Amino acid sequence: MSDFADAARNGLTPAALEEVLRQIGAERYHNRHPYHHRMTAGTLTRAELQAWALNRYCYQAMIPRKDATIIARAEDPEFRVEWRRRIEDHDGQTGWDGGIARWIKLATGLGLDEEMVKSERFALPATRFAVGAYLSFCASRSLLEAVASSLTELFSPVIIGERVPAMLAKYSYVTEDTLAYFMPRLTQAPRDSDFALAYVRKHATDPERQQAVIDALLFKCDILWAMLDALDHAYGEGGNIPPGAFVPEAR
Amino acid sequence: MSDFADAARNGLTPAALEEVLRQIGAERYHNRHPYHHRMTAGTLTRAELQAWALNRYCYQAMIPRKDATIIARAEDPEFRVEWRRRIEDHDGQTGWDGGIARWIKLATGLGLDEEMVKSERFALPATRFAVGAYLSFCASRSLLEAVASSLTELFSPVIIGERVPAMLAKYSYVTEDTLAYFMPRLTQAPRDSDFALAYVRKHATDPERQQAVIDALLFKCDILWAMLDALDHAYGEGGNIPPGAFVPEAR
Repeated sequence: MSDFADAARNGLTPAALEEVLRQIGAERYHNRHPYHHRMTAGTLTRAELQAWALNRYCYQAMIPRKDATIIARAEDPEFRVEWRRRIEDHDGQTGWDGGIARWIKLATGLGLDEEMVKSERFALPATRFAVGAYLSFCASRSLLEAVASSLTELFSPVIIGERVPAMLAKYSYVTEDTLAYFMPRLTQAPRDSDFALAYVRKHATDPERQQAVIDALLFKCDILWAMLDALDHAYGEGGNIPPGAFVPEAR
Repeated sequence: MSDFADAARNGLTPAALEEVLRQIGAERYHNRHPYHHRMTAGTLTRAELQAWALNRYCYQAMIPRKDATIIARAEDPEFRVEWRRRIEDHDGQTGWDGGIARWIKLATGLGLDEEMVKSERFALPATRFAVGAYLSFCASRSLLEAVASSLTELFSPVIIGERVPAMLAKYSYVTEDTLAYFMPRLTQAPRDSDFALAYVRKHATDPERQQAVIDALLFKCDILWAMLDALDHAYGEGGNIPPGAFVPEAR
């Protein structure tokens, strides 16, 4: 496992910086997490899939606020025009016909109650803390770091490509319609991450900024990893659901 | 397990509010957590104790900043005078002769390197997210909620009373000197929580404020619980240390 703590100490060319960022994804993106492996192996219980959808909803629902936070800090109108597509993707034209609505469809397709999911009341506290940390990060760090933290999207087509076929093949109750969230993401995420990567390559011009970019992506990988850790601990084999969190129905 | 979501719907007398708060402690304080049970049973490994001390350091080190955040929002000088003792307790007179220094003593007494602990670099991301959530809560919610979130100290003598004798009895390498942090807490915590409880009883005068107080204490219990959940998952039986976090030496 690489450390990355000093990866930029001697300064990096834009291409070398990109290589480090892609290496971080290869080592630390949450497609390396045991919970994801169990998902694609078909060995998650229905309760574990439900808990995943329920908790991940809190993340999805926060994304437009995170992106508005970034837009609010950007002085360049062209940047803002580019970035606002992200909000449109998630909120849609009515608030409930974009990515968030499609995530609700995933959750209800797995048997969860829509209002219960939307309330976010039964998510794991650790999910809320991770989601809050991501929002705070984008509000308090430099614009460059906020943009860099979005670069997990570079790796998103990989995880979707692993997840969708496996879920359809291995879980009889999962349908293509339930997974409607993921298809548009296969074009949206690369479009968004191409822009963010070009921005980072252009603006991370000294070792300090390059290291900040590297640390931002590590931080974001930590966020996604911690969300699966929390699910694993609460709903995996040990069964350690914290007080007040979602308790699956016995089936 | 009680829900507490509507506990104040009809309004509560100060005594009844206090009873709800104490009930929350009885059900959800982290002395109910399996990691704590294993600590007092003497079945934590030395690595698990180290990981606990290392991660909990991040919490201890943030406490004076949390308390300064609260003081910064308080308009009453008498309140501020009372609350600043908390900062003095943790930072001491030199910065390194108060509670934080005594926590360092605990960590080094368990065999950890002082600089490694202070760097906070090897704490679990989930610890950082929980600690950050607590700091954000005290910065963004009402002063009443921030004060109420400190009320876990009502229950702190209980957990110290369980922890200290058990650690001395069950772990041959733990000495009284190593546990020096806890003795002053037995008088500081009740003094502080008496003040905070009186404040909450006086100012939570309608159902909405009472529910906010209840929710603040639930939130704080979630913070402490999530920190032990993360330790359990990373360093407990399964061994799921996330990328970049503390890896105990094999012994």
